[in-house]
Amino acid sequence: MFLKNAWYVACTPDEIDGKPLGRQICGERMVFWRTAESGVAALEDFCPHRGAPLSLGSVREGHLVCGYHGLTVGASGKCVSMPCQRVGGIPSVRSYPAVERYGFIWVWPGDAAQADPARIHHLEWADNPAWAYGGGLYHIECDYRLMVDNLMDLTHETYVHASSIGQPEIEEAPPKTTVNGDVVTTSRFMHNIMPPPFWAAALRGNGLADDVPCDRWQICHFSPPSHVMIEVGVAHAGKGGYDADVRDKASSIVVDFITPATETSIWYFWGMARSFAVHDHALTETIRTGQGKIFSEDLEMLESQQRNLLTWPERRILSLNIDAGGVQSRRVLDRLIAAERNATATAAAV
Amino acid sequence: MFLKNAWYVACTPDEIDGKPLGRQICGERMVFWRTAESGVAALEDFCPHRGAPLSLGSVREGHLVCGYHGLTVGASGKCVSMPCQRVGGIPSVRSYPAVERYGFIWVWPGDAAQADPARIHHLEWADNPAWAYGGGLYHIECDYRLMVDNLMDLTHETYVHASSIGQPEIEEAPPKTTVNGDVVTTSRFMHNIMPPPFWAAALRGNGLADDVPCDRWQICHFSPPSHVMIEVGVAHAGKGGYDADVRDKASSIVVDFITPATETSIWYFWGMARSFAVHDHALTETIRTGQGKIFSEDLEMLESQQRNLLTWPERRILSLNIDAGGVQSRRVLDRLIAAERNATATAAAV
Amino acid sequence: MFLKNAWYVACTPDEIDGKPLGRQICGERMVFWRTAESGVAALEDFCPHRGAPLSLGSVREGHLVCGYHGLTVGASGKCVSMPCQRVGGIPSVRSYPAVERYGFIWVWPGDAAQADPARIHHLEWADNPAWAYGGGLYHIECDYRLMVDNLMDLTHETYVHASSIGQPEIEEAPPKTTVNGDVVTTSRFMHNIMPPPFWAAALRGNGLADDVPCDRWQICHFSPPSHVMIEVGVAHAGKGGYDADVRDKASSIVVDFITPATETSIWYFWGMARSFAVHDHALTETIRTGQGKIFSEDLEMLESQQRNLLTWPERRILSLNIDAGGVQSRRVLDRLIAAERNATATAAAV
Repeated sequence: MFLKNAWYVACTPDEIDGKPLGRQICGERMVFWRTAESGVAALEDFCPHRGAPLSLGSVREGHLVCGYHGLTVGASGKCVSMPCQRVGGIPSVRSYPAVERYGFIWVWPGDAAQADPARIHHLEWADNPAWAYGGGLYHIECDYRLMVDNLMDLTHETYVHASSIGQPEIEEAPPKTTVNGDVVTTSRFMHNIMPPPFWAAALRGNGLADDVPCDRWQICHFSPPSHVMIEVGVAHAGKGGYDADVRDKASSIVVDFITPATETSIWYFWGMARSFAVHDHALTETIRTGQGKIFSEDLEMLESQQRNLLTWPERRILSLNIDAGGVQSRRVLDRLIAAERNATATAAAV
Repeated sequence: MFLKNAWYVACTPDEIDGKPLGRQICGERMVFWRTAESGVAALEDFCPHRGAPLSLGSVREGHLVCGYHGLTVGASGKCVSMPCQRVGGIPSVRSYPAVERYGFIWVWPGDAAQADPARIHHLEWADNPAWAYGGGLYHIECDYRLMVDNLMDLTHETYVHASSIGQPEIEEAPPKTTVNGDVVTTSRFMHNIMPPPFWAAALRGNGLADDVPCDRWQICHFSPPSHVMIEVGVAHAGKGGYDADVRDKASSIVVDFITPATETSIWYFWGMARSFAVHDHALTETIRTGQGKIFSEDLEMLESQQRNLLTWPERRILSLNIDAGGVQSRRVLDRLIAAERNATATAAAV
Repeated sequence: MFLKNAWYVACTPDEIDGKPLGRQICGERMVFWRTAESGVAALEDFCPHRGAPLSLGSVREGHLVCGYHGLTVGASGKCVSMPCQRVGGIPSVRSYPAVERYGFIWVWPGDAAQADPARIHHLEWADNPAWAYGGGLYHIECDYRLMVDNLMDLTHETYVHASSIGQPEIEEAPPKTTVNGDVVTTSRFMHNIMPPPFWAAALRGNGLADDVPCDRWQICHFSPPSHVMIEVGVAHAGKGGYDADVRDKASSIVVDFITPATETSIWYFWGMARSFAVHDHALTETIRTGQGKIFSEDLEMLESQQRNLLTWPERRILSLNIDAGGVQSRRVLDRLIAAERNATATAAAV
């Protein structure tokens, strides 16, 4: 149950540095590599010769060489050479549209004819010298929608992340959810609270006092297929909160690209983009480490939740006030997936 | 194929010390914790909000707080609070009768209406200052009845435990099996034999010579659902054997609570209760370590046997003379399980 | 899909030195041990008493004693004794014909009546003081025919073993495949090439210069059920190549016994027999270590290929020129397996 006609983050450039990468995305086993023109390519990870994974091979002059018997393919999936062998009759490997942009490699697992790079999720902070970014990647054994739920309801910070970003005031501030087309936004504002440890450190990182009352905000934006961008921050109380001058606040964007591997597992690309102290690489690393630790706390919870749901498949779970963000995001997904399936069925009938 | 309307040992008090414990028992996933009144509670390990395991949560003022979003339940399974949320409509979690007694937490996985604490297996040695007890817990991948067979036929000591409690004389003394209601007893008496290493150490622990001929006994008592208590001991020969004065023997009760986790796995609570040198805590620990090592020798055998039986499901295994204890115990179980199922079916029809 | 009426290598003598060995072969779980007459025996690894694996037991006076309760069987599978028990009624364990020859234990998993030791694959180099042998054993999760393919097409050396025995000239020399009855032979000859590292070392081991042009050959012989013997070597160029005098070449036989464990896993007995420097045990060990490292490189490739083929079961893989050896070997197998099945069906009808 995922959208196939959509751009997903497949990997980061360092993962295909000098060698191919095998990765399952939306149920499809793919191999990624860097082509001669510094472009990127994605094929099905299956050599048409003997079925070996092409990802065990190597890259030669921008082509992918199978590591078993040397069958060599180009970005289109066409076999370009093989030792002592005419290659005209060798069937092509299925290729997937792949694009490098904003520091990520994006892939379109569905109908290649519909893949328009203009539809790649725009990241205003990427390729922008006024911003800094650090992030990481986790593999988690859960349905991607459980992670969307998680990120669209930050009430869980109080329980799962009690020692870092959680604080009782979060759950005392009721969230507000709005839907605008395919985008769902859940906002929560807290006033006159003490910053929790992660934000105290961020204030210090921005040269601000960390022991004074603050306003805090969390504005979560879901957009299909499964991206969640969260504006987060704290400002010294009385300075305008979210709208405070940059000298009175520490704010950033939590970046979450949730790429389904299978129906019950994900590649979770997480990170944080910030517009303060952008040249402080040590700070970037400190934030990255802290965020990595915090997000690993979700991992056990999500995998346990997934196991429970598989154990009791018939159980209905509840949708309370706090779950509105996830509920609305799932509605958007259900609508788009139904439309995609109808279009595919119609195309097949024609 | 287990009795559901029965008291099983679920855990020991130290396992719920300050935090909840998740454990599968008779196929049911349960969470155990200590309530405010120093009582114990058991619920299904599934939060009605989003399906997270409640066992990942925490205990607050005797209530169980879900570690994901803070839904809080009491011992009855009723939701008592949730941040910013009216809880009237939240369905209750299934609760299981649970009782602390004799140093164990007991649970009744079946029909709660029939759970009578008076039916908990009586342990005359527990809560008795004239006795000392030490034990442990193993998880073993086997049908609980294979462990009942194992304990009701100690012939295997000669082969599986050759270096500790086994000795050829065991298999030379034919066992005698009797059935009294739901209780099966298999007895074996050996006369004028040298004590094997474990028992030589026990004699020394009781201040007795370990290099003289002894009488030895093993009296195994099975009682439903799957408890096996074994009276074991050695006495200096000619002093009356089993009935010898306490100054001439070392004796104890091997305690085995076999709690099915699934159809092919168990929680095995093992231990030893003794009525000599009861204040010698070092001896308790020595015995516990030795017994733990011996019982771990059964583990590989039982798991291998289970794998073999699953590989050849159609094979009949034999029931020889020595197997009478296990055979009779299984007959009791078959009868009680059939009765329980008939009663359940009748109740459903009414 | 394997031949059952055939001799397979089951294990090496050191594996049954003083204790029984459990091993699955052609889907059958077997136990091997050494009998009193220094013979070998193989039974189904299932004690008729309680189903424990007999391989967890011990050997006493050439009989196999079950490690659980002491049931004792002879090579024929008949129970010879059990403590305190008459054994007349105990059913026999299925026995498999087993023979020790050429430094291996061979087993016949099929119809025992057809097992003729004269049909064991003849090894002219074994039990021959003019030859030395060293080898090892790997367990690999792949269909045994993928390993036959691998060994009957050494093109893969260029890619999988680039740092040891691979060299571009291999794939530039087209192989020639012939079929003679049930034996398939694929030959490849390279002329006037520099020896790759493994062969340079072998030349030095034989006291020959390693920095001069050489002729190289690879002659792969498949014979049922799944044995592949490969004549390999290098000779100083211009000395006659394969037919060169032994003082001008380093040559050996790569020995591959591929014994199916299940449909998708194998016991792979690999080794090398050589007729030079046969008393140099250090050289034997050096070659063994080097070969072990090289053959472990195939392991990941074969297991990955197997996983891919299971993921895409409907995919056809290609058979190119270089695959002729494997293709012809599979044809022989298909023919023999069909004949075996027909014969079994006919016998069952009669």
